[in-house]
Amino acid sequence: MDIGMIGLGRMGGNMAERLRRGGHNVVGYDRDPQISDVAGLEELVERLPAPRAVWVMVPAGDPTRQTIHRLGELLEPGDVVVDGGNSHYVDDQKHGEELAAKGIGFVDCGVSGGVWGLENGYALMVGGDEEHVKRLMPIFETLKPEGEYGFVHAGKVGAGHFVKMVHNGIEYGMMQAFGEGYELIAASGLVTNVPETFRSWKEGTVIRSWLLDLMVRAMDDDPELSGIRGYAQDSGEGRWTVQAAVDHAVPLPVITAALYARFASRQDDSPAMRVVAALRNQFGGHAVESAKGADSAGADVEAPSV
Amino acid sequence: MDIGMIGLGRMGGNMAERLRRGGHNVVGYDRDPQISDVAGLEELVERLPAPRAVWVMVPAGDPTRQTIHRLGELLEPGDVVVDGGNSHYVDDQKHGEELAAKGIGFVDCGVSGGVWGLENGYALMVGGDEEHVKRLMPIFETLKPEGEYGFVHAGKVGAGHFVKMVHNGIEYGMMQAFGEGYELIAASGLVTNVPETFRSWKEGTVIRSWLLDLMVRAMDDDPELSGIRGYAQDSGEGRWTVQAAVDHAVPLPVITAALYARFASRQDDSPAMRVVAALRNQFGGHAVESAKGADSAGADVEAPSV
Amino acid sequence: MDIGMIGLGRMGGNMAERLRRGGHNVVGYDRDPQISDVAGLEELVERLPAPRAVWVMVPAGDPTRQTIHRLGELLEPGDVVVDGGNSHYVDDQKHGEELAAKGIGFVDCGVSGGVWGLENGYALMVGGDEEHVKRLMPIFETLKPEGEYGFVHAGKVGAGHFVKMVHNGIEYGMMQAFGEGYELIAASGLVTNVPETFRSWKEGTVIRSWLLDLMVRAMDDDPELSGIRGYAQDSGEGRWTVQAAVDHAVPLPVITAALYARFASRQDDSPAMRVVAALRNQFGGHAVESAKGADSAGADVEAPSV
Amino acid sequence: MDIGMIGLGRMGGNMAERLRRGGHNVVGYDRDPQISDVAGLEELVERLPAPRAVWVMVPAGDPTRQTIHRLGELLEPGDVVVDGGNSHYVDDQKHGEELAAKGIGFVDCGVSGGVWGLENGYALMVGGDEEHVKRLMPIFETLKPEGEYGFVHAGKVGAGHFVKMVHNGIEYGMMQAFGEGYELIAASGLVTNVPETFRSWKEGTVIRSWLLDLMVRAMDDDPELSGIRGYAQDSGEGRWTVQAAVDHAVPLPVITAALYARFASRQDDSPAMRVVAALRNQFGGHAVESAKGADSAGADVEAPSV
Repeated sequence: MDIGMIGLGRMGGNMAERLRRGGHNVVGYDRDPQISDVAGLEELVERLPAPRAVWVMVPAGDPTRQTIHRLGELLEPGDVVVDGGNSHYVDDQKHGEELAAKGIGFVDCGVSGGVWGLENGYALMVGGDEEHVKRLMPIFETLKPEGEYGFVHAGKVGAGHFVKMVHNGIEYGMMQAFGEGYELIAASGLVTNVPETFRSWKEGTVIRSWLLDLMVRAMDDDPELSGIRGYAQDSGEGRWTVQAAVDHAVPLPVITAALYARFASRQDDSPAMRVVAALRNQFGGHAVESAKGADSAGADVEAPSV
Repeated sequence: MDIGMIGLGRMGGNMAERLRRGGHNVVGYDRDPQISDVAGLEELVERLPAPRAVWVMVPAGDPTRQTIHRLGELLEPGDVVVDGGNSHYVDDQKHGEELAAKGIGFVDCGVSGGVWGLENGYALMVGGDEEHVKRLMPIFETLKPEGEYGFVHAGKVGAGHFVKMVHNGIEYGMMQAFGEGYELIAASGLVTNVPETFRSWKEGTVIRSWLLDLMVRAMDDDPELSGIRGYAQDSGEGRWTVQAAVDHAVPLPVITAALYARFASRQDDSPAMRVVAALRNQFGGHAVESAKGADSAGADVEAPSV
Repeated sequence: MDIGMIGLGRMGGNMAERLRRGGHNVVGYDRDPQISDVAGLEELVERLPAPRAVWVMVPAGDPTRQTIHRLGELLEPGDVVVDGGNSHYVDDQKHGEELAAKGIGFVDCGVSGGVWGLENGYALMVGGDEEHVKRLMPIFETLKPEGEYGFVHAGKVGAGHFVKMVHNGIEYGMMQAFGEGYELIAASGLVTNVPETFRSWKEGTVIRSWLLDLMVRAMDDDPELSGIRGYAQDSGEGRWTVQAAVDHAVPLPVITAALYARFASRQDDSPAMRVVAALRNQFGGHAVESAKGADSAGADVEAPSV
Repeated sequence: MDIGMIGLGRMGGNMAERLRRGGHNVVGYDRDPQISDVAGLEELVERLPAPRAVWVMVPAGDPTRQTIHRLGELLEPGDVVVDGGNSHYVDDQKHGEELAAKGIGFVDCGVSGGVWGLENGYALMVGGDEEHVKRLMPIFETLKPEGEYGFVHAGKVGAGHFVKMVHNGIEYGMMQAFGEGYELIAASGLVTNVPETFRSWKEGTVIRSWLLDLMVRAMDDDPELSGIRGYAQDSGEGRWTVQAAVDHAVPLPVITAALYARFASRQDDSPAMRVVAALRNQFGGHAVESAKGADSAGADVEAPSV
């Protein structure tokens, strides 16, 4: 079918390519005129037959908001917009209402797959009205992996990005669990063959998983992970997961701990721990020390042995 | 090769069966005479040709300790004992020393696989001297899954059970991550198709894993998991993982949170939260309330709106 | 000085009383005509001499927003509004801008003290411009405790409620720490004199504090806290603290754990733990069990001892 | 009364001094002959009238074990030993049994007070038989603070050190709560007067406490705590608290998080986070980066805005 693709970066470009390979007619727009098929959104809308389908694949936040607002001005009743970016589900709900007021459909679609997606397909998590999702099914069928999984119509508008957000939250927890296990094994001094231990877990264990496979790949390149700093960014989705949990009064200790471990990994020195150190110095009665190696406080008992 | 198997319960019995199917000669002993090949450990030892190999598959703790101690009395220099149970790695180290003093080899082997192991093979994590592990390789080859993974010689005595223990700790974290994600999705009210959401994740996502497959199976039986109480036991291995981490000063926030969630799941009423409730009542100045629904305290401001 | 007090509930009423005792002229308004000095906000504004000071003490959220918006319509340039409720600091920032556009000053004031405040004074945490804070100092001086502490001008608009919010977050962590300590002592079976243990800590220890005093008071009434359910609500401020931390990428493990413990205390059955239980059943190969007492899964080894 | 004091370091020396000021006859022994009253334990025992009381104030672990074992050889039935160090409660139970077999009493005494104790008294938490505790009351009365608090006979042998251990666990949680609150306030950019904010909390707030007082003292010396590294040791007691909780299946999320924050504060680079970073690199499809500033992975969507 015909579809417009707005945003032809790494993700959007590959998705357009997979759609073309699947026989669809994709009109692509990008800010970069070198890779764009059209000069602007107006031309993109003109080039698509009504009722139109337009896939938005631009960064979450203002870029997506502005794009969808502009599409609301350009499109006609009966057209449908898909937001395939990483938008917050509350944004989706606003966009859905804004477009619905003009008779334009809106579907949010969480996409997983990264660089592997072009060849293997993208996992798609979709929110929206049955009617709009149905219309877009030929597109989803082409983008998704070939097997029987990898696509879900999770619920109404917002549900697609919501479950993608939670997927990422689960991912945080799983990654941290592997990290903690690795650290304990490495610290034990008992295990002389760490990479082979992880590799062996690829079969017959409860924790076998794609993340384990990736961990083994990483250790193939760098068995002691010595070339990597213990430093991790977080995407907005981990934060949103925790904030949604707090909104819903859902305890999320594991996912939150994983998020906080990333925050802490980016600190050279923890202000909270400066307070703890200062307090130990106060009640231990020692002079304050500034050197990291020189712990000076808190021994309640200091006595010779006999 | 010839091997003695002590303990023919669900795990030991299946392992003996897999070994026999693989062409080994297994002499089995169990307290239950109906399933035992021999009358006692003495006969088991007699029936095995020297140098002997004996696999111990009895509950961790005293049963294992007593069995290994008794084998130390019955076996001869050059024999080798495998502890395939869930022993603590520190116990292994003691057993290894005790047997080494008599010239008897000791190998600890963490086993994963549960009821699936008879057909699919068992993941094996082994600790011990190269010499003893090598001697037992025909046994390990038969027990392990058919592919290239599922076996590791992780390090010296204790390393096998140590990495199995950590495997279980990682498993705790992963399971809790899935649980938390499920709870948040269910609480959101946005997602009308929860089981299909999890099913869709089986392909193309970062979190695809055997645990996800099992979760989908569980939802096939009971889509809302309504027949299951939110109540989980813990095996000793989760606790040992946390205690080992504390011994080694390794922060383990995710695995520990998962363990604590299990502890909390078994409480009808949290004593800690009784304190929190009592304190809120004290500084809120309210009478103490006993009914769950009647929250009475802590509103710092209570004022009419205009 | 002259001041209007909007909202004469438990907090506002007591604060008006403390101000009157301190010699101030308070014009009070409440929705309840029985306790209101005036018929409405119009009359309240009329009865105050310019430049006016008006203290808003109504519930956070819409009631406060509506009240402040209405004051913006009624007041004149040079007047000043104090929000003494539990507003979110981001609301303060909006209110400050809205009023500033009309030449009206705005000060946010976090208030601590509960029912003890009328006699002992209220701890006040204030945000706003120096000029407005200075004008209100006679009011703050009367409301605060008599000693040298209990008042701070923490920063610009929003800072007052921000630090009050963090105060409450710290309070959550401290309360949970006491609760956990209590639970462990009670579980140990070693300690026959639990209330006296806590009472003894009131002097000479590192943890002596007002919360400890309150805990001892609670145990004086109910030594085993047996009349209290382990169930705790949370005010919005604990949630806001966590959400602000996530916004600022600040790891807050203790305060968040305390908040989550409250969330969990309000659940009869944890959906997350249903998943964990279901997974254990799956890989343990057991039938799903519904009874709480009947743990059925997860024992990897089940074998007789010798 | 007469008492022997073994170990005259900072704690033991000050306690001996406080006892002498209180009219007791103290015979002190220390490895350092310059400060010791006697040449060895034999002479100490000889110099005390029967039935003897001996206070052991040496480091926990082997020094205490060896001292108590030696006292078991030197003392007579009817004598009593106090362990005032930081021993683990399980050690106490062993020592109590060992001495009881010889008719010698044993009392364990957790001591809080640090350098402030000589003048202000020490908080004492005692475990043991009523008979032995009663005999030692003149000593406890002199050591404890002057007010009505600061002493408890918590239960049988082990209970004293157990509750002191839990006291320290609570202390960890409270300190971390203050640290987290500080960090969030500092990160907010809203609060221009951080030390005065904490100082103001000394009256009228829920979190007023000795630790808050100490924090204000620390900020008096160093308002931004800029001279202190965010690095904190942990005494054994925090670890023991967590391990006891795991033994008793008591969830301790706050105290454990506080302990883990200390562990993490001592790491230059987190091995767990190296795994997380490696995994993000793998599924993000990026080359592995070693520089801290160069985050390279995980952006699922990379697209131009329109």
